[in-house]
Amino acid sequence: MYRTHTCGELRLSHVKKTVTLSGWVQRIRKLGGMTFVDLRDRYGITQVIANGANNAQLQEQLNSLGREYVLQVQGTVVERESKNAHNPTGEIEIEAHEIHILNKAELPPFTIEDDTDGGEELRMKYRYLDIRRNPIRQNLELRHRMAQSIRQYLDKQGFLEVETPVLIGSTPEGARDFVVPSRVWNGQFYALPQSPQLFKQLLMVGGIDKYFQIVKCFRDEDLRADRQPEFTQIDCEMSFVEQKDVIAMFEGLAKFIFKQAKDVEFSGDFPQMTYADAMKYYGCDKPDIRFDMKLQDLTAAFKGKGFSVFDSAQHIGAIVAQGCSDYSRKELDELTEWVKRPQIGAKGLVYVKYNSDHTVKSSIDKFYTAEELHAIAAQCGAKSGDLLLVLSGNTDATLNALCELRLEMGKRLGLRPKDTFAPLWVVDFPLFEWDEAEQRLYAKHHPFTSPKPEDIHLLDSKAHNVRANAYDFVVNGSEIGGGSIRIFDSALQAKMFSLLGFTPEQAEAQFGFLMGAFKYGAPPHGGLAFGFDRFVSILSGCDSIRDVIAFPKNNAAKDLMAECPTRISQAQLQELGISITEA
Amino acid sequence: MYRTHTCGELRLSHVKKTVTLSGWVQRIRKLGGMTFVDLRDRYGITQVIANGANNAQLQEQLNSLGREYVLQVQGTVVERESKNAHNPTGEIEIEAHEIHILNKAELPPFTIEDDTDGGEELRMKYRYLDIRRNPIRQNLELRHRMAQSIRQYLDKQGFLEVETPVLIGSTPEGARDFVVPSRVWNGQFYALPQSPQLFKQLLMVGGIDKYFQIVKCFRDEDLRADRQPEFTQIDCEMSFVEQKDVIAMFEGLAKFIFKQAKDVEFSGDFPQMTYADAMKYYGCDKPDIRFDMKLQDLTAAFKGKGFSVFDSAQHIGAIVAQGCSDYSRKELDELTEWVKRPQIGAKGLVYVKYNSDHTVKSSIDKFYTAEELHAIAAQCGAKSGDLLLVLSGNTDATLNALCELRLEMGKRLGLRPKDTFAPLWVVDFPLFEWDEAEQRLYAKHHPFTSPKPEDIHLLDSKAHNVRANAYDFVVNGSEIGGGSIRIFDSALQAKMFSLLGFTPEQAEAQFGFLMGAFKYGAPPHGGLAFGFDRFVSILSGCDSIRDVIAFPKNNAAKDLMAECPTRISQAQLQELGISITEA
Repeated sequence: MYRTHTCGELRLSHVKKTVTLSGWVQRIRKLGGMTFVDLRDRYGITQVIANGANNAQLQEQLNSLGREYVLQVQGTVVERESKNAHNPTGEIEIEAHEIHILNKAELPPFTIEDDTDGGEELRMKYRYLDIRRNPIRQNLELRHRMAQSIRQYLDKQGFLEVETPVLIGSTPEGARDFVVPSRVWNGQFYALPQSPQLFKQLLMVGGIDKYFQIVKCFRDEDLRADRQPEFTQIDCEMSFVEQKDVIAMFEGLAKFIFKQAKDVEFSGDFPQMTYADAMKYYGCDKPDIRFDMKLQDLTAAFKGKGFSVFDSAQHIGAIVAQGCSDYSRKELDELTEWVKRPQIGAKGLVYVKYNSDHTVKSSIDKFYTAEELHAIAAQCGAKSGDLLLVLSGNTDATLNALCELRLEMGKRLGLRPKDTFAPLWVVDFPLFEWDEAEQRLYAKHHPFTSPKPEDIHLLDSKAHNVRANAYDFVVNGSEIGGGSIRIFDSALQAKMFSLLGFTPEQAEAQFGFLMGAFKYGAPPHGGLAFGFDRFVSILSGCDSIRDVIAFPKNNAAKDLMAECPTRISQAQLQELGISITEA
Repeated sequence: MYRTHTCGELRLSHVKKTVTLSGWVQRIRKLGGMTFVDLRDRYGITQVIANGANNAQLQEQLNSLGREYVLQVQGTVVERESKNAHNPTGEIEIEAHEIHILNKAELPPFTIEDDTDGGEELRMKYRYLDIRRNPIRQNLELRHRMAQSIRQYLDKQGFLEVETPVLIGSTPEGARDFVVPSRVWNGQFYALPQSPQLFKQLLMVGGIDKYFQIVKCFRDEDLRADRQPEFTQIDCEMSFVEQKDVIAMFEGLAKFIFKQAKDVEFSGDFPQMTYADAMKYYGCDKPDIRFDMKLQDLTAAFKGKGFSVFDSAQHIGAIVAQGCSDYSRKELDELTEWVKRPQIGAKGLVYVKYNSDHTVKSSIDKFYTAEELHAIAAQCGAKSGDLLLVLSGNTDATLNALCELRLEMGKRLGLRPKDTFAPLWVVDFPLFEWDEAEQRLYAKHHPFTSPKPEDIHLLDSKAHNVRANAYDFVVNGSEIGGGSIRIFDSALQAKMFSLLGFTPEQAEAQFGFLMGAFKYGAPPHGGLAFGFDRFVSILSGCDSIRDVIAFPKNNAAKDLMAECPTRISQAQLQELGISITEA
């Protein structure tokens, strides 16, 4: 037996017991003839004390030890003289009788400490060492705990966990599909699912009633910060439900997760906000409502005073940064540079300082009287000591830039603490997006999303005004989940496909088996999917989802440890019936 | 709200309540002016009774109803006059006030009944309808229940559920790998994992200590009955363990599953059998021990009496079919044909009838006296009334044919009831297999399996005699799981690779990152994986794993419903940088 206890387990109550521990050497110190070894495993660290003075073999072993050596230690639990209150095992130590080196270790390429000296690339290449560090291990433990809680809740609510296929059919629209050549059927391909959408709807047609799955999905998309080619969804679907039923069910799930994983409780329902309000007040469809600082529409107030930049702008918007009227010239210049970065894309930044002495100072003093600027303060609730930051330009770009500026100011003002969670439902999404370049409608959510019944009469005349029974779940400005009530009527679904520019033949080729299924009695149904990686990262306070994935790929979709993707052999290509096209 | 209750929920205690149900029409009967509708959902069937006599609109709807229509019914719960004891809701019925047709249904291509008239191909094409049938739905429910039990047990035992990547590197030996061309890195490929073996070992190096995952694995292999290109494993690994620790842990898991899913309890430990005994007594490494009928080695007893078939045979073996001495000529002829089928491959079948009147009758009377045949009966425990069935030939082929004959006779004699479960650990597997054709050793389990320490000295001299710390979990003659203690010492692992014919360069290319990891302090570790599909099918009493998979592929690796694999567009191929090789 390699161990009687773990390295996190022993307490004063174990004193005088003979125990065996196994683990890694975290630290070695010598003091006189004594050697102190901190022995580490997943569960904790226990101090081992060894005296090699009268035991040459033991002493030799002690002298040979290095960091990350794997040891088995037999000894007696004794009470420590100088206790360590920061360590749960800090009241005891092990007086070693015998030490057995189970495995040696080369010096790791970075330190196995909470704050390591390894950069991300090095940590990824040696991910198995990175995982030994508390922060990464704790993320994986949190992820485990959340996964178990999710299943516990959904099982109790009558959901069935059903596995849907990973090898599915590719669809002509699936430009971001990973495909898999078949060896058995040369020239033919499977695709990896971007989501189990069709299959979960078929499960509803099949009467499964309540389905969930924590499932890998795949997207071969252009590289964007903090996306992974494979990612995990908490995928759910229910029959005989309306939007409010789905929201109630998964609000319950979210509350259960917060409670189980972080001991955070919420009183009352999560707030709901329409898409229109989210865009108006926050400039985006996933507002961070940990702090207020709503966007102010000052278009009317600022226009017509001779300032040509504003006069020619489609939209003039602002935020009020409370208590920031003392920003220095340098700070304002830096902020101006910040909004002009290509990611933000503003042309410039106008400020108005409402000083504590009730004077006003702005970059556009020339065009606006103090009275006019005070009137604007009154309109947007700015007080003495506040700073008004104003952007202008075309509406979409300005709202977007204001959204980013708001988030940035929130961060700078400490209004976005990682341990505060502000969940929000965003509802009443538009059913379509209009693509100006291609002059056609796209489904905002996906082609199976149901329009609001009261808006169906607008489908032919004002499709862009039709709202969907679609909802997103947002926490701290991140979209954690989204879903919709689905169309379950063949005729309405055919109408949707036609509005989206599919010919009946194209619709049949892509979605034929779903349309076929709908002929045999489809129930009303709807659902939701959470992005599990993002959900864990929000709860763990990590900035990147890579920190909550055991073996992530980097932003170039490469696994630096396993070194993939790679070339494969000519023989393998031949068997698959494919060849590499020279570019 | 679509429903207040499910179709499986209402009882006498609900009488007089106004309720709303939603579900599918299972059956419609008319009796006088009354219409009886059996309304079905996942939870059960409730009888609805409607009187359209004084309600033209209702009558019209009732007249239009067909099987599998989706209805919403509002009505009052009333006590039934003629109760149906076979149905949990059979004491009540719903007097309908209002019926709302939520969706119509075409006539299904097969009946939605426990015993359907649909063949497997049709059922697969319309799998969403097949899932509505009780037997399939119950299998999916069992699968769900087992998955939850597995997680509950392993979570309690301190295992962490960790997701390993699906897009991994291909290895030169991975001839059965599915590969995935990268769009971002043209000419390079990911592979889909045949198992998470390397990653789970890396998690042990990373100090995760106890890992599990219920995970999809993939194998692009030649088509065999009842295999799927994607299948699900319960994959587990533990650190600081020996074989007995692993077996104890997963025997506990198996017992928990049997109890939770089937209410079956086992007293005492599961039996263990060495690989050598399994081959000797059952002719295979996965014995069905629901019944005895062990193989008898009669080589010595039968040889040297002038029967040339036996005299020239390497091995003569037999089984005793109890109480079968009255088999007719026709039955014996049929059995002889059965063993001569190519799948069994015997040249012929010799029988000895030990008749109830103590006479002996055999197909080889000419060569053996009654005394000699009685002596053989004594040797193998045959009694009056029993039938001895004898096969001969080369040892491996004969043992294999006897194994099949034993299973067949067990089936014919009703000794293999589906609701009896006989679990078994097969241990002490050989480390290597010798490939006669290629004149080289192969790893019986995989190259990371640890030899038994007491056999290590044989590695150079008698490698084929080296036993492994490997074990299989067998239930009712099916291998449900298997695993091993792994090598955790770089030098021994290098030795293994060399014995398996890898050059150091090949070993480095294939397993470099595992070998690299082992340099930084690998703990002793071992584990096991269960085949989840097979495990569910054994517990459900299904013959095929297809019946316990929601959307299986057929034996030609095709999904008949989603119609994949398929050709993909030229544009897609171009983006991926590959082309189809014309065969």
